[in-house]
Amino acid sequence: MLAQANDFSFSGLHVAGSTSNPSGSRVTPVTVAQLPGLNTLGISTARIDYAPWGINPPHTHPRASEILTVLEVSLMVGFVSSNPENRLINKVLQKGDVFVFPVGLIHFQRNVGYGNAVALAALSSQNPGAITITNAAFGSNAPIASKVLAKDVMSHVR
Amino acid sequence: MLAQANDFSFSGLHVAGSTSNPSGSRVTPVTVAQLPGLNTLGISTARIDYAPWGINPPHTHPRASEILTVLEVSLMVGFVSSNPENRLINKVLQKGDVFVFPVGLIHFQRNVGYGNAVALAALSSQNPGAITITNAAFGSNAPIASKVLAKDVMSHVR
Amino acid sequence: MLAQANDFSFSGLHVAGSTSNPSGSRVTPVTVAQLPGLNTLGISTARIDYAPWGINPPHTHPRASEILTVLEVSLMVGFVSSNPENRLINKVLQKGDVFVFPVGLIHFQRNVGYGNAVALAALSSQNPGAITITNAAFGSNAPIASKVLAKDVMSHVR
Amino acid sequence: MLAQANDFSFSGLHVAGSTSNPSGSRVTPVTVAQLPGLNTLGISTARIDYAPWGINPPHTHPRASEILTVLEVSLMVGFVSSNPENRLINKVLQKGDVFVFPVGLIHFQRNVGYGNAVALAALSSQNPGAITITNAAFGSNAPIASKVLAKDVMSHVR
Amino acid sequence: MLAQANDFSFSGLHVAGSTSNPSGSRVTPVTVAQLPGLNTLGISTARIDYAPWGINPPHTHPRASEILTVLEVSLMVGFVSSNPENRLINKVLQKGDVFVFPVGLIHFQRNVGYGNAVALAALSSQNPGAITITNAAFGSNAPIASKVLAKDVMSHVR
Amino acid sequence: MLAQANDFSFSGLHVAGSTSNPSGSRVTPVTVAQLPGLNTLGISTARIDYAPWGINPPHTHPRASEILTVLEVSLMVGFVSSNPENRLINKVLQKGDVFVFPVGLIHFQRNVGYGNAVALAALSSQNPGAITITNAAFGSNAPIASKVLAKDVMSHVR
Repeated sequence: MLAQANDFSFSGLHVAGSTSNPSGSRVTPVTVAQLPGLNTLGISTARIDYAPWGINPPHTHPRASEILTVLEVSLMVGFVSSNPENRLINKVLQKGDVFVFPVGLIHFQRNVGYGNAVALAALSSQNPGAITITNAAFGSNAPIASKVLAKDVMSHVR
Repeated sequence: MLAQANDFSFSGLHVAGSTSNPSGSRVTPVTVAQLPGLNTLGISTARIDYAPWGINPPHTHPRASEILTVLEVSLMVGFVSSNPENRLINKVLQKGDVFVFPVGLIHFQRNVGYGNAVALAALSSQNPGAITITNAAFGSNAPIASKVLAKDVMSHVR
Repeated sequence: MLAQANDFSFSGLHVAGSTSNPSGSRVTPVTVAQLPGLNTLGISTARIDYAPWGINPPHTHPRASEILTVLEVSLMVGFVSSNPENRLINKVLQKGDVFVFPVGLIHFQRNVGYGNAVALAALSSQNPGAITITNAAFGSNAPIASKVLAKDVMSHVR
Repeated sequence: MLAQANDFSFSGLHVAGSTSNPSGSRVTPVTVAQLPGLNTLGISTARIDYAPWGINPPHTHPRASEILTVLEVSLMVGFVSSNPENRLINKVLQKGDVFVFPVGLIHFQRNVGYGNAVALAALSSQNPGAITITNAAFGSNAPIASKVLAKDVMSHVR
Repeated sequence: MLAQANDFSFSGLHVAGSTSNPSGSRVTPVTVAQLPGLNTLGISTARIDYAPWGINPPHTHPRASEILTVLEVSLMVGFVSSNPENRLINKVLQKGDVFVFPVGLIHFQRNVGYGNAVALAALSSQNPGAITITNAAFGSNAPIASKVLAKDVMSHVR
Repeated sequence: MLAQANDFSFSGLHVAGSTSNPSGSRVTPVTVAQLPGLNTLGISTARIDYAPWGINPPHTHPRASEILTVLEVSLMVGFVSSNPENRLINKVLQKGDVFVFPVGLIHFQRNVGYGNAVALAALSSQNPGAITITNAAFGSNAPIASKVLAKDVMSHVR
């Protein structure tokens, strides 16, 4: 069957995602799972909504770099460089500001303005993946926290 | 010198580009030339403004696929498949709609709504390049039109 | 079934393609569609025949660079750089001359010698694709010319 | 100057790294920084030593997959799949066992045998990078923990 | 300085290379060393001349696949699959026949027709490299034959 | 079916491979054929055993660079650069030494110490392939030696 325009399009990013959750943020992804025409093309996108003080918590994309544009309000964004420096590189972005998160590095955004914030992100893979650090480290279905994380975390958090 | 947050950011995409030109559109690119931190990361972005009935005329990106999100108003978008079919795949997009243009294919957008339209595009290269077909085919500094294009074009346009 | 020598070979490039068509040229491709053994190998080839004054009209390959060798007679060849320069880089080639067309750029050849010209091209993809500008811009099955091209083209051609 | 054999070699992986540190493990990397001949070749290696109950704590490599071979004693190893499953895939490895950690995923090893354990890892990049989750999330030089991590972590750890 | 047409061209492939050497063949390469415009473009070419019964002896290209077109006379060509089969896949090619040699495999050509044979090869790298097996195995400047090859070769040749 | 830990693991590299063969060496590969979880991950490994004076004879990997670590005894290792230099770059390695063989180049190892030597190699492909020069050049199932190799080899060996 011949490809049709609908194979290359997706609708709905004008709608705010629900931020009624503990982190106060919501990612609405448009990857090859939602938009089949992305197959082999090395790109995807996502809308991100943030309630006031909402956080898109620290996470990585194992297969993509990300470029993020602030559409509404302002965000404190940052990423942490790799070992041994683990240096935080962060900045407060205003509407219309663009920021890039290099492939595989831990990064986050936080709404630091008034009202609901919105960003549009693009990623350099049709299937970038996402790993929320706290979910993966503390919330995995077969938890690793008690065995290999507990001592480390406690010494850092306290 | 250590990398700083400013190496990874760019400001100004909240400002509409001037569409006072024959095509009635304006592309504001954010590639590695504007945002050095994009180097080696395989992604870039651009804001596109369209006056009423403004056109981002047929063009290609020689080194990138593009994913486009409509932020304001509505656009008729399309691309043409390669030889021998040269099939036009097009669609009218509303605010919040996303469309993908595969690498190297001729594509375009046209404002078909009321008021000024805005889109945000992302591209799968730090330096995607852009070739506007009419500029390259008819307007190149050492013109090729009279020599190798004239007969072909006339037979198609008339 | 084990691979056989025939899976890696193709016959017939010694035969001139018919140039009895408006452009006066003919491309005989040898891509993975004609030679299955090219699969995953990142290369393909093509013979190009040109009647006197025949033109291989402006086109792009969305997924490949091309290296062309003149086997018979002489050709005026060229490509146009991307925006904003749109600079034509062209040269008259004699028998035995080689020229390279970078990935995705609009390029063409024209027979400027006496008799039928022949070239052998190689491309950096098993499936490079080809987009003839006039076919795609003016001849697509769902024509875009009247809607998004007419004004632009007329202002350039006149 | 011509390349010499020493440009392609590195010495010292027979020596156990010191594990007198809180995690009880030590990685001795051999990347392009230690072995210049690795430049452009897409591979590197590392020796990992583990004191009894020593842990190579959860970390990612932003630019490489890893294949690990147990040389001495036994290790409990694992990685966590990406969102939304965050499924832990883990196994106890004996001497001579091999395990693979896909690019960008959080993984770890823990000595679960008697005596000092040793593993040899190889990575699919000349410069794979490493991000220890607790260092990056809780120990970064400009700490993010109090701002964007505290609530999340506390709810998981308690 | 702006790029010029000469940066993208090379002259001289119409001239037969001298085959007055033990193998009775001559390769005239056009790689990035001869044609700077090939830089980053992933392709190169070569003319190969063969005296009657001349041989382009078994060799590999460590970084490229090759597609070869017979321009004059006929060639017996072949390549050997990898371990453990080491199966010879070979064929006699006539003028106009095309054959592909997958990346890194040992291949060769031999003139099996009347008169001087000519082929044009293209390779999927700007710098494919070439390793003639007998040169590398028996003729290297610091010979390895006596130490690590002698027993093996003798048992095969006798 | 969900992926399981066993899909990402392989057992048995603690066992010495039999070196009761003419070369006195044995390669035990762990590629995607033995460890399915390596699929798409760009890495694999192998154990190599060498009897006293055993040789891993000159060979190439058509799709991978290799990094080798000596685990037991000592090895004379080397590779030969490509045409026209064909320069041998070699070195005697002791236990704990690491050496890299660039993609596609002919390389070898020889046990030059007392007792059985052991090395662990990693390769930058899930399916690197291996071509033993003498097998491919002299032992292929449809032998090429008598036709295209004999003269060359004899002149080098004598």
